[in-house]
Amino acid sequence: MKKSIRTICGSAIVVLALCCLMLSTAHAQAASDPLPSWNEGSAKQAIIKFVSATTTAGSAEFVPPGDRFATFDQDGTLWVEQPMYTQLVFALDRLVALAPGHPEWKTTEPFKSVIAGDRAAMAKFTMKDLEQIVVVTHTGMTDGKFAAIVKDWLAKARDPRWHRPFTDLAYLPMLELMRYLRTNGYKTYIVTGGGQDFVRTYANQVYSIPPEQIIGSALDMEFTYNDAGKAIMMRSPKLLLNNNFSGKPEDIYLFIGRHPQAAVGNSTGDREMLEYTQAGGKDSLMMLVLHDDPVREYAYGPAQGLPASKVGTFTQALYDEAKARGWNVISMKNDWKRIFAFEE
Amino acid sequence: MKKSIRTICGSAIVVLALCCLMLSTAHAQAASDPLPSWNEGSAKQAIIKFVSATTTAGSAEFVPPGDRFATFDQDGTLWVEQPMYTQLVFALDRLVALAPGHPEWKTTEPFKSVIAGDRAAMAKFTMKDLEQIVVVTHTGMTDGKFAAIVKDWLAKARDPRWHRPFTDLAYLPMLELMRYLRTNGYKTYIVTGGGQDFVRTYANQVYSIPPEQIIGSALDMEFTYNDAGKAIMMRSPKLLLNNNFSGKPEDIYLFIGRHPQAAVGNSTGDREMLEYTQAGGKDSLMMLVLHDDPVREYAYGPAQGLPASKVGTFTQALYDEAKARGWNVISMKNDWKRIFAFEE
Repeated sequence: MKKSIRTICGSAIVVLALCCLMLSTAHAQAASDPLPSWNEGSAKQAIIKFVSATTTAGSAEFVPPGDRFATFDQDGTLWVEQPMYTQLVFALDRLVALAPGHPEWKTTEPFKSVIAGDRAAMAKFTMKDLEQIVVVTHTGMTDGKFAAIVKDWLAKARDPRWHRPFTDLAYLPMLELMRYLRTNGYKTYIVTGGGQDFVRTYANQVYSIPPEQIIGSALDMEFTYNDAGKAIMMRSPKLLLNNNFSGKPEDIYLFIGRHPQAAVGNSTGDREMLEYTQAGGKDSLMMLVLHDDPVREYAYGPAQGLPASKVGTFTQALYDEAKARGWNVISMKNDWKRIFAFEE
Repeated sequence: MKKSIRTICGSAIVVLALCCLMLSTAHAQAASDPLPSWNEGSAKQAIIKFVSATTTAGSAEFVPPGDRFATFDQDGTLWVEQPMYTQLVFALDRLVALAPGHPEWKTTEPFKSVIAGDRAAMAKFTMKDLEQIVVVTHTGMTDGKFAAIVKDWLAKARDPRWHRPFTDLAYLPMLELMRYLRTNGYKTYIVTGGGQDFVRTYANQVYSIPPEQIIGSALDMEFTYNDAGKAIMMRSPKLLLNNNFSGKPEDIYLFIGRHPQAAVGNSTGDREMLEYTQAGGKDSLMMLVLHDDPVREYAYGPAQGLPASKVGTFTQALYDEAKARGWNVISMKNDWKRIFAFEE
């Protein structure tokens, strides 16, 4: 009895395998371009070549599926960071919302300038000013309370240029690139200078990246108990991880324990992450987004004569290092056919 | 043409589906006990009930696959920790191996006692003594160099009782439990007070847990460059994460961003991890291994009148909390049919 079942099954498997082969060929033709929002060019070619080399069994550059990691900066790489980081907009909005409970802020800097909406004064804020703003808006509550505040803000806030939710401002070519990598067995991580918990509230919805694959600047959380004796997690004002510059590879090592094969960034804060990726010694893909499209998005550098910017600084030295090391510089203007999903 | 292919495929699929159904029923009968090294009892029942409740679609306690996390302490929970933590054996062996290059150690404590093999003096080592030993044996080299040293030691070292590689001393019932959870969509993490990088060198081979799912005590690694300008990661003597007690849930939050559904430990250092797991508000499984089998392994507490131990202390207060909160205490003697894979 067993033998006859196996024989029938065997024939069925052969027929089915042939069917699958024919159907999958048809499917591959229909979905032949995994990166439809990218123009043909060296950046797109480099991506396709890298994925093919590292995922083709028998290739000298083959990477086993469990070892495939790709890390992405967020601000300016996955979504818009101009004229101000989204999380900073949140912090300022939150400060204004909290102001009625803190009458002393009306006469104390840096709060005073934020409440008054004094953009000139805010533009001169030091790192210490910004830290003070982050402390009063991001700490002192439980993890759950903070996530609820962020989600509520994201649902209501609109960006100043397109008048859309900030989460609409993700770059479509990057969403395609991350999906393409995942389809080929890569685990995609966000490695952001922004707050880990801030990004975790929307990353799954916007980028299909779950909380455990978000590496960011992080507070030294405090485990404690509420009045009912239940375990809770409080947001303390102490920074544990400053996930910028050399902090990026250090935290990648902490979370993943090895070199990624691919890394994408857009500013000097991403330099060390790309160097660490390349130092892995296998075939690797390092990319930097150059914001050179003042019409469809923004133009800033100061690399290549673009206007200087304190937000997402891309220096000429970084550009020169990219060229020297064989990293790919993505020209937003030339390499991206379409920037946002909401564009016609 | 297309239509006729689809018709043939359709028939093949129906036949194959029937075959699969018959074969999988046979398979399910053969593999009906996912935990063969566990005796029937309340611990085993609790595991099966928890997995069934959280993975059955339509169940009130159903947890979506992407949200299924289980965290395991290592020393004393997944493998033997007596008479001394394995990593401490490594540190002492390493110190002796390095001693010829450090003649000054012969006259300086705590190194002197280690080199002399003075067990009585070593038993009195303070935390500061142990820290000094860890610094000279675990830091000052690259990540890759350290991993190579650990792997080399693990290949040669033998435990003092069974005279086997330390990696043979993993508990078979726990390997079964982790595999059972993974088969049911759970991501298994190790959350250890031991060194993250030490555990990462063998965890994939021993526990089928990859480096990115190892949370442990961790150094503040230093990204820098070698003489050739290549990015490297150096092991600095500064501790970043002390992954014990409240550090466990804090680091689980850092790495995973939410409560696990299951947590297993064996000592006071695991208490907060289990409390945090239970506080997740869904169906959850909290377990503590009680070492009450002096014949097949070791017996220590001091809970339930067992001998006190500085290594893996399980206090009566922890035992009482477990009973009060409905956690499962696993009796190694009564709940485990077989402890090691190498046993007959």
